[in-house]
Amino acid sequence: MPQRSDARRRMVQAARQLIRERGYHATAISDVLERSGAPRGSVYFHFPGGKTQLAAEAAEDHAHEQVGLIDEAAGQVSSARGLIEVYVGLARDGMVGSGYSRGCGIAPLVTEAGPEESVEVAETGRRAFTAMIDRMAFHFVNLGLDRAPARQLADAVIAGVEGALVTARALRSPAPFEAVLAALAAQATALTPKTAARKRN
Amino acid sequence: MPQRSDARRRMVQAARQLIRERGYHATAISDVLERSGAPRGSVYFHFPGGKTQLAAEAAEDHAHEQVGLIDEAAGQVSSARGLIEVYVGLARDGMVGSGYSRGCGIAPLVTEAGPEESVEVAETGRRAFTAMIDRMAFHFVNLGLDRAPARQLADAVIAGVEGALVTARALRSPAPFEAVLAALAAQATALTPKTAARKRN
Repeated sequence: MPQRSDARRRMVQAARQLIRERGYHATAISDVLERSGAPRGSVYFHFPGGKTQLAAEAAEDHAHEQVGLIDEAAGQVSSARGLIEVYVGLARDGMVGSGYSRGCGIAPLVTEAGPEESVEVAETGRRAFTAMIDRMAFHFVNLGLDRAPARQLADAVIAGVEGALVTARALRSPAPFEAVLAALAAQATALTPKTAARKRN
Repeated sequence: MPQRSDARRRMVQAARQLIRERGYHATAISDVLERSGAPRGSVYFHFPGGKTQLAAEAAEDHAHEQVGLIDEAAGQVSSARGLIEVYVGLARDGMVGSGYSRGCGIAPLVTEAGPEESVEVAETGRRAFTAMIDRMAFHFVNLGLDRAPARQLADAVIAGVEGALVTARALRSPAPFEAVLAALAAQATALTPKTAARKRN
């Protein structure tokens, strides 16, 4: 039933945008309905787990899109440094383009998950960041890095971008992205063996 | 009146801890009272601006402590690289020591500040991160860096730590701190002129 699944998709998208703008707790189901234009009755039909499930799917959707962006960026470059330049640049442009109004779609589930929060929320954050880091490390290996430095560099890239999404937004300046990019790009060059094959993915 | 100001201080501390654990919106005034043991009547006496004021003071308190930690770390080292090693190490140890249950005391004000949030909350986030970055850059200059690279490196350090506070918590692993530290320490070495005086602060 295309109409139903379209409402479902629109609700996940709306939840994701709202979480990026105002976080997890301040995203009410009523706001999701208003922004997506989905009928109220559709909430528990599509998301029997309620807001927790909706937020988890929104974060998964965000991670899925980021993994796609990482793959796309990897297809355009011939070095780990190049991949970092494209990926950090996309994050910076997204932040500036939103008028510093939108952050990460996953981080709020981590920073707002108190001890009484559902295990599902915490587990979603873990899975989502793991997917992004794994994919980044995979491409770094393809771009000539050894496995351990590839993993470490991927950890640093995802953390660096996450942090810039917070401080750049607070400062309303792209400077944190530029600063993080400079450090990560230099590290990529240092970790790339001189003999690394410049393969395209 | 020492009793009153003690209650005030305990409320700011409790608000800060709760914001670090569960974020801004999920921190209710009633939770702050319960954790601080302060009497209910004291909220609007000490914080006529209510929760917004309490959260802003909690974030300022967090930034103040971080600036103190940066100063202390700077007093122990003789290079920009050393300062980064000590500061990132403190953040990592704090995260691990909390059982991955406590993040930054400022970031939630940034990521949960939707468009209808008070200007005060957003402005507090900007001021708090600016204070930390300024102080880090100040010490980098003292440790031999030129002003522009000192500023850029400080931007990268604060963003890197902020990001690691999110991804390390999600992954329940110190790896993001180690990864960020490796990239930042290498960048510090690269940015330090060979002739830099190794002054102690």
